[in-house]
Amino acid sequence: MLTVEEARERVLSHFQPLAIEDVSLNEALGRVLAEDAVSREALPAFANSAMDGYALRAEDSAGASAEAPRRLRLAGEAAAGRVYQGRVEPGEAVRILTGAPLPEGADAVLQQELTEVAGDEVRLLAEAPAGNNIRWPGEDVRPGALLVPAGIELGPAEIALLAATGVHPARVHRRPRVAILATGDELVPLGETPAPGQIRESNSPYLAAAVTRAGAVPVRLGIARDRADELRAKLDEARSADLILTSGGVSVGDYDLVKELLSEQGDIAFWRVRMRPGKPVAFGMLGATPLLGLPGNPVSAAVTFELFGRPAIRQMLGSRQILRPSIEVVLEGEDIPRGDRRHYVRAWLDSHGGTLVARTTGAQESHLISSLQGATALLVVEVGEGVVRAGEHLPALLLNDALPWGA
Amino acid sequence: MLTVEEARERVLSHFQPLAIEDVSLNEALGRVLAEDAVSREALPAFANSAMDGYALRAEDSAGASAEAPRRLRLAGEAAAGRVYQGRVEPGEAVRILTGAPLPEGADAVLQQELTEVAGDEVRLLAEAPAGNNIRWPGEDVRPGALLVPAGIELGPAEIALLAATGVHPARVHRRPRVAILATGDELVPLGETPAPGQIRESNSPYLAAAVTRAGAVPVRLGIARDRADELRAKLDEARSADLILTSGGVSVGDYDLVKELLSEQGDIAFWRVRMRPGKPVAFGMLGATPLLGLPGNPVSAAVTFELFGRPAIRQMLGSRQILRPSIEVVLEGEDIPRGDRRHYVRAWLDSHGGTLVARTTGAQESHLISSLQGATALLVVEVGEGVVRAGEHLPALLLNDALPWGA
Repeated sequence: MLTVEEARERVLSHFQPLAIEDVSLNEALGRVLAEDAVSREALPAFANSAMDGYALRAEDSAGASAEAPRRLRLAGEAAAGRVYQGRVEPGEAVRILTGAPLPEGADAVLQQELTEVAGDEVRLLAEAPAGNNIRWPGEDVRPGALLVPAGIELGPAEIALLAATGVHPARVHRRPRVAILATGDELVPLGETPAPGQIRESNSPYLAAAVTRAGAVPVRLGIARDRADELRAKLDEARSADLILTSGGVSVGDYDLVKELLSEQGDIAFWRVRMRPGKPVAFGMLGATPLLGLPGNPVSAAVTFELFGRPAIRQMLGSRQILRPSIEVVLEGEDIPRGDRRHYVRAWLDSHGGTLVARTTGAQESHLISSLQGATALLVVEVGEGVVRAGEHLPALLLNDALPWGA
Repeated sequence: MLTVEEARERVLSHFQPLAIEDVSLNEALGRVLAEDAVSREALPAFANSAMDGYALRAEDSAGASAEAPRRLRLAGEAAAGRVYQGRVEPGEAVRILTGAPLPEGADAVLQQELTEVAGDEVRLLAEAPAGNNIRWPGEDVRPGALLVPAGIELGPAEIALLAATGVHPARVHRRPRVAILATGDELVPLGETPAPGQIRESNSPYLAAAVTRAGAVPVRLGIARDRADELRAKLDEARSADLILTSGGVSVGDYDLVKELLSEQGDIAFWRVRMRPGKPVAFGMLGATPLLGLPGNPVSAAVTFELFGRPAIRQMLGSRQILRPSIEVVLEGEDIPRGDRRHYVRAWLDSHGGTLVARTTGAQESHLISSLQGATALLVVEVGEGVVRAGEHLPALLLNDALPWGA
C-alpha cells in the first residue's frame, strides 16, 4: 500500500500552474501571484508630513519652549495633494497638513498642538529637530523592493500594497475549473425526497464548497447511476475541466465503475493508500483530463479531497502553499487508538496559556458526517500500537481559522 | 478617551441581523444560519451495510472459522439504492454492497474477504456477531437533533450535513451591502498616475477585499475630493447601503469634512479611541444609514476596520462570532514598547513544539502598509510602562489561517 506522501507525489506530478492572466486589483482577492510583484516606485513617493502642523527649518526652532516661544512668519499653506509653490526661508513657517509634501527649504514639522497662531505669526512652543514628523521617501517601500513574491495568495494587505505602488493589474494564474460528479444508484440530489433504500447525496455539495474555498471554480455534473454508459456520458461533459473529482465507485464492489472506466482509458493508477479514513483512491487521465476518484463515504471523500484534491488545485493555482500548514499540538481529552494505517482525526484546536491543544470531534467512523463539523484541524496519528494519550504531542494540519463554537 | 470596548459597544448598538432569506445549499458557502438547523430525519435513515459482503443471521455464523467454515445458501443480492425484496431465512445469506439496506431477517454482515463463494453456496470463514458491519439508523444524526446552530457560518462540512439530512434551502441572513468611499485631494484611483504631491489610493481596495472576506458585499464609491458638496453627493449615492465606510477626513485637520458632515446630520459620535494605530474614529447615522469614518492612514484604516467595521458586518450577518478569536501567545524576537494607548501590533504566528509564538512584522508606524503584509494576528499590548519582552504572554487576535511565508 502506498503512503499518503507517495500517492500525493504521483497525483501532483500531473499538475502544473495554469496560464497567466491579468486581473484588476478589484478582482484579485484570493488569486495567486504568477510573478514576483516588484515596486517601480518609492513609498512614500515624496517626503511628507506625518501630522497637521507647521513646516519649518529645524534651526529656527532651536531653544523654543512654552515659556520662551520662537516666533516665525506664516508664509503659506501646504495642503495634501499639492506641491507648495515656493520655499520656506529662514524665519518662516508654512502651514502643513498630514500627507502633504514637505515644502522646499523645510526639514522639520512641528505639530499644531505645540504651536499658537496669531495673524501671520506662528509661535513655536517646542523644538522641532531635523526630520521631526517627516516621513521620508521609500520608508515603507524602496524602488526595486519585492512587494509580494510569486506564489502568494492575495489578501487585503497584499492588495493594498500593490495598489499603493501601482502594481495594477496583478498577474495571476487562471483559476482551475473542477468538475464534480457523484456516483451511485442510491443517491438523490438536493431538493428531492429519497425513496426507501435511497440516501441524500451530500458529497458534491461538500466538494463544490471545498473546491471554492481552495480557490477553484466548481462545475457540477450531478449524479451518475451505476451504469457504465451513464458514467461515460457524464464524464464526457467534463473533458474541458482542469480536474474531475468523482465520489464513489472506487472500492472493490461489483458496481465500482469509476476504476473500470479509468482502466479502459489507459493511464490509470488505482491505489489503496495507507490511511484512515479513505483507503481507496483512484487517479488517472481520462484522455487529457486528470480524474481523482474519491471514496463514497462522506468523511473519506472529505479527507481524501484535503490530502490529494486540494493540493492539486493549489499546484494549478501556482501557490507556494500546496499543503495545509502543519503545526505541533498537544492532545487533550480522549485517547486516540493507533492502528495499521495512518489516521487523520478531525479535531478542534484551542490555546490554553500559549499551548495549542486539540480535542477530537468525537466518534471518527467514516460515515459520520457530523464528525467533520466545526473541525479546525486534522490530527495526524502515525501507524503504531496502543494509543496516543492526553498530554502527548501530535502534528495537526490547520483547516481554517475558526475556533470551535464553544470557545 | 474611549476604550476600544466602549467605542465598539456604541457602534454595535446600531446594528441588527439583517432580513432572513432562503438560499440553495449550492450557494450557501460563507452564509450565516438565521435559525437553528434541526434534522427531521435520521442519518443514516435505515440500517445498512458498512462493507461489501454477505448479510445473514448472526446465529448462523456461530463457530465459523477458516478451518471449519459454516455454509449458507446464497439467496439473492441487496444492492445500494434498493430495498431487498424478501427476507433472510435461517441458513441463508444475501450478497450485500456497502450502503445497501440490511434485508429483513438479517442482523449481521460478514465482509467478503472472510467468505468464499461457490455457485449458490457461501462459506463463512469467521463469525459475524449480531450488529457486525451494520450502521444503525440515527448513528450519525438522530431525528430532532440540532445540526448547526443559528449564527454559525456555513462551511463545506456544515453544508454536507444539511444536504445529507434534507435541510435545503438554508435560512440565512441577507449579506450586508457596504459602501466604501475614500476622501482626500491627494488621492488618485487604481490605474491612474499620481501627479507630484499625489498618492495612489489603497484604502478602498483594502477595504473592499476585507469587506468581502468578512462576508459582505462591497459597493465602491471611489474617491471624494475635500469639498463638502462632493462628499455629500457621493454619500447620497450610498444611502441604500447597510453601512458606509469612509477613510480619511476624521482627524482634526482643516479638511476633515467627514466629521463635519456627520455633525450636520445630527446623530454623530466622533471619538478619539485609546488605541494605536487609529486614534480618531467617527461614527454616526447619515439619515438612516450608519457611517463609520476610518482614519486615512492605511494601517490605521485597516486596524480600525478590524476592530469596529468587521464586527458591525458580522452582527448584521447574525454571526455568533462577532469578534476575532483571541488566544494567548508567547512573544518571540523583538521587544514591544508599551505606551499610553493600547497598541495593536501586527504579527506572525507559529507553533514551536506546541507553544504558539508570535513575532512582530517589523516597524509599526501607521503609514507603513508593508507592516500589514502576511500578518496573521494582532497582538494586544495594553497601556503601561516599559516593554513586553520575548517570552512574555500576550493575547492575539487571529486574522486568518495562513502561516507566514517563511514557515
